[in-house]
Amino acid sequence: MKVGLGDKKKDMRAVWFSNGEVRMIDQRRLPNDIHIVSFRDHSDVALAIRNMTIRGAPSIGAAAAYGMCLAALNGRNLKDAADLIRAARPTANDLFYAVDHMLNALRNKVPPQKAADDYAQTIVDSCKRIGEHGAALMNEGCTVMTHCNAGALATVDVGTALAPIRKAHDDGKNVFVFVSETRPRLQGMQLTAWELLQEGIPHSVIVDGASGHFMKMGIDMVIVGADRIAANGDFANKIGTYEKAVIAKELKIPFYVAAPVSTFDFAAEDGNKIEIEYRSEEEVTMVGSMRVAPVGSGAKNPAFDVTPSRYVTGFITERGILRPLEIGRMR
Amino acid sequence: MKVGLGDKKKDMRAVWFSNGEVRMIDQRRLPNDIHIVSFRDHSDVALAIRNMTIRGAPSIGAAAAYGMCLAALNGRNLKDAADLIRAARPTANDLFYAVDHMLNALRNKVPPQKAADDYAQTIVDSCKRIGEHGAALMNEGCTVMTHCNAGALATVDVGTALAPIRKAHDDGKNVFVFVSETRPRLQGMQLTAWELLQEGIPHSVIVDGASGHFMKMGIDMVIVGADRIAANGDFANKIGTYEKAVIAKELKIPFYVAAPVSTFDFAAEDGNKIEIEYRSEEEVTMVGSMRVAPVGSGAKNPAFDVTPSRYVTGFITERGILRPLEIGRMR
Repeated sequence: MKVGLGDKKKDMRAVWFSNGEVRMIDQRRLPNDIHIVSFRDHSDVALAIRNMTIRGAPSIGAAAAYGMCLAALNGRNLKDAADLIRAARPTANDLFYAVDHMLNALRNKVPPQKAADDYAQTIVDSCKRIGEHGAALMNEGCTVMTHCNAGALATVDVGTALAPIRKAHDDGKNVFVFVSETRPRLQGMQLTAWELLQEGIPHSVIVDGASGHFMKMGIDMVIVGADRIAANGDFANKIGTYEKAVIAKELKIPFYVAAPVSTFDFAAEDGNKIEIEYRSEEEVTMVGSMRVAPVGSGAKNPAFDVTPSRYVTGFITERGILRPLEIGRMR
Repeated sequence: MKVGLGDKKKDMRAVWFSNGEVRMIDQRRLPNDIHIVSFRDHSDVALAIRNMTIRGAPSIGAAAAYGMCLAALNGRNLKDAADLIRAARPTANDLFYAVDHMLNALRNKVPPQKAADDYAQTIVDSCKRIGEHGAALMNEGCTVMTHCNAGALATVDVGTALAPIRKAHDDGKNVFVFVSETRPRLQGMQLTAWELLQEGIPHSVIVDGASGHFMKMGIDMVIVGADRIAANGDFANKIGTYEKAVIAKELKIPFYVAAPVSTFDFAAEDGNKIEIEYRSEEEVTMVGSMRVAPVGSGAKNPAFDVTPSRYVTGFITERGILRPLEIGRMR
């Protein structure tokens, strides 16, 4: 992704390996600071996943792969390292997929950095393909709504939901993006808007509750990412996704889920099998160090919701666009 | 409404007249400060409506009535005062209704304070009746979702959407309330949660995007207020209301609008005739004095959305509960 403004733009990934260290952009400090953090131990990478220094299912997967790479290079017990990293967050399928990929590669004597770099590169290549398939759905002048951040920050580079938007823009199409801010952590306002700004793609931030209003006013397409997709096409994504899917169906607006094959969990037969992470009340009741809720009022803070597959027009994957009933093909 | 905690609770209204002054709770400083502001000139009351020192359609109406009362007591040109107050905000029908009420009463030589006090008392009496009608819909142990603040702060006292909840609680029923926080200004988290806390009514704050998730998990009823209701039952309310209405219909959850008759605008044949106020981008992009959106990313900030009447199970008014097709009765 492009990072920096004007002449100072440079290409950067969300996470990479260099000089024996895992490096990543600290996404908690965007959009104000572009701050790079480095880790030499897999337990610190697990913590960075847990505390959301890095987030977004494919980026979590890549960070996990690099964490396993560190564990291997440092001669640690790989089973213990795998358990620690898997426990960092519960919902994203990519986390488990990446750890399994690394255990398998290391068992087959693939050099650790090569195994992790290959994993990350596969994501980026998949995202480029997702961008090509998805951009074909976008007409000149279209307006698109997205939620949370399914951009380069979430996927090492390029993005899932943002990949078709980037590609359409690069192809010279005028695309306008409605970015729902994505409370409580504002990944839409702070990360997606920031990425679109770097690329010069026109957009407006809206509060999450305004999504329905603007869909009713006229949006051509909704595209979101996914953290885990069950075998029947039910999928977990950032809290607020389900609402957009229901409203899109009501208004007959196409609703697409953009995700690489690593996001599919064929062991989960349907959405009821996907564990939903509940995060701390303070993500809702505090803004920075300031309490905004009355003292004494509690909050419930699910990080994700599950959207039934019947609301999905299509899954945009690196292997093409599939309807919910067609995803068995990818097993 | 009860204000204060423990032994220090006292009864207070959102706006009242005393010693030649209009007094109101500054709602922008809740829940942390209970700060009372006083005004001696109608133009300051108009400003307090505009800058949301006081908000909520019925409270805006009462403030407007007291503003007209000040204009009359101070010997100002009533037509000019009426124009100034009417221009304070565009969406709430109560604002126009209250100004017309005062012009009519003053023309009929009703003393200014009596005319305004009568207007405010009529709202409070209506809210009590709304509470009685609405509480009859609530069973022991029910869970209710509301949005924004349609409580005592919004309606001088008692509330519209919160009135049935208060009444059911006072009647000894266990009621649990999901309070969607209501970005951008957080009236749900800061005002509704605060009112429920004062009354000891169990509740949880959720982000707006989590409404659908919790409705899918099981909610018995959604109740919201309204800023203006057109002749066909389409209604404007805080941004985010439309989404909840669509999802409630999808999930077959009853969706009620609680509002006094003053909120109905029979001159507006349908929702397309209701003007939607757009407020400043900074309400979305800034939190306090801190910018949270990237510099360069803009926001669109409609304060309200319009929900078509087909999503409404019933309107809870002081005259009873009416289905959308029955509201013509109230003309």
